[in-house]
Amino acid sequence: MSELLFPRVAFIGIGLIGSSLAHVMRRDKSAGWIVACARTQASLDTARELGLADEVTLDPATAAAGADLVVIAAPHSAYAELGRRVGPALKQGAILTDVGSVKGAAVRDLGPIVPPGVHFIPGHPVAGTEHSGPAAGFAELFEGRWCILTPLPGTDAEALARLTRLWESAGMKVETMSHEHHDTVLAITSHLPHLIAYTIVGTATDVEETLKSEIIKFSASGFRDFTRIAASDPVMWRDVFLSNREAVLEMLQRFTEDLTALQRAIRWGEGDKLEALFTRTRAIRRSIIEAKQA
Amino acid sequence: MSELLFPRVAFIGIGLIGSSLAHVMRRDKSAGWIVACARTQASLDTARELGLADEVTLDPATAAAGADLVVIAAPHSAYAELGRRVGPALKQGAILTDVGSVKGAAVRDLGPIVPPGVHFIPGHPVAGTEHSGPAAGFAELFEGRWCILTPLPGTDAEALARLTRLWESAGMKVETMSHEHHDTVLAITSHLPHLIAYTIVGTATDVEETLKSEIIKFSASGFRDFTRIAASDPVMWRDVFLSNREAVLEMLQRFTEDLTALQRAIRWGEGDKLEALFTRTRAIRRSIIEAKQA
Repeated sequence: MSELLFPRVAFIGIGLIGSSLAHVMRRDKSAGWIVACARTQASLDTARELGLADEVTLDPATAAAGADLVVIAAPHSAYAELGRRVGPALKQGAILTDVGSVKGAAVRDLGPIVPPGVHFIPGHPVAGTEHSGPAAGFAELFEGRWCILTPLPGTDAEALARLTRLWESAGMKVETMSHEHHDTVLAITSHLPHLIAYTIVGTATDVEETLKSEIIKFSASGFRDFTRIAASDPVMWRDVFLSNREAVLEMLQRFTEDLTALQRAIRWGEGDKLEALFTRTRAIRRSIIEAKQA
Repeated sequence: MSELLFPRVAFIGIGLIGSSLAHVMRRDKSAGWIVACARTQASLDTARELGLADEVTLDPATAAAGADLVVIAAPHSAYAELGRRVGPALKQGAILTDVGSVKGAAVRDLGPIVPPGVHFIPGHPVAGTEHSGPAAGFAELFEGRWCILTPLPGTDAEALARLTRLWESAGMKVETMSHEHHDTVLAITSHLPHLIAYTIVGTATDVEETLKSEIIKFSASGFRDFTRIAASDPVMWRDVFLSNREAVLEMLQRFTEDLTALQRAIRWGEGDKLEALFTRTRAIRRSIIEAKQA
């Protein structure tokens, strides 16, 4: 596919997701001119060396000025301040989107700064690796994965269609839903699993030094699978948990209740309860395989 | 490698691990004659169709009689009864081993039935998949993985060396340690991770039916990695938790404390605590990669 979707694109943040999307746009020539903005000159240098940007700047307003598409690809804690700086620079007809994992927070922090005539469409490409930074990006990151857009009521259909085409060009299946629904679903499928993985890796390695080397040695017996998830970007994930606090705490409460019940079953030797759960969870795996998400 | 290690081998249980080891022994001609024993005729039929056994029987004593190597490859809850039946049939000089995940339980349930002159060497090939049954086995399952043997003090060196050669022929790196130490290490690296994975998959899918399909749809965002672990054999894992109860409950207690601390940090917006943990867990992943266990 080679279609010029946006003459001028600004990436505010050029980490794993931002740089991967820039790779896609370079490959497909869907952007006429790419401006990258980052917090550090080092990131900008890397983005330029990789040929991901025609222009780089440390100033978000400079990046956003005149852009047809502005992609906020920074941790959630930076949104409010970035919004303040980017808002006044946005041109009429521009699309403002983001790639963050919590859509309620995007609406809260960016919504108020969007001038009339600018199309604000929060988005979440559900893709990633445990690596971060501009050098970690690659065009194929998004292929076959879901992108969730959470347009507010009354969003311009043409703008939504154009943003959808962009993510489809990256190989994604695009779905739209409300930001509230997104945050509930992702709290279960993504935020809780990450929180648990971070916890267990912390717990397992909070042991005497001699045991630690053995834990690493025998990690393939189950532990290893958690360490990959628990290697994800620390700042991004800190912000996810703080930004989706209510939904995460709600799911965490349910999880804790279930874990306590299992703990009790183990203590009292109630094997039938354990087996019943383990049989049920095995069936879930089959559903995922059937849904071709395995 | 082609070395006849054991003229007659009996597999008591021929599921994923038993059948995989039988595949190895067929490939390497390390067994002269293989007898398979299982709880169901269907498993025996499968084992025979796959060419894994020269002889099959539903009676553990018949299988063990005259064998040079007897491999208990059944769930832990069957050990005591299998021991009672196999014990009297064991011939002088035979090696009795097992492949279970809890070595204290193996010593407790099999130790007392071992006649003088029989070499009892508990073992644990740390390998597996989420599939089970005799048709799930394959010779390469063990390659590059660890096998932990937990010989009791005074174990015959020649018998230990012969059993070690068998697992090495399967491609495993063999390590020996006490059964108590094994159970502590595996509680952390394997049992706790499995318990947590089973719990989270249960929690996440205990939701309204409409949400459930979305959880499966968007499972690649983290949840999916847990479902593979939580698809492991229900009976085997029920037995693991009940057999290694003390060590599992101890680790679970630590995990719960750590999770409660994180929950509190999220509730009170203490981002620095979250970030500090997530930065530490990311470093663990690097250690695993450096140890070539990733």
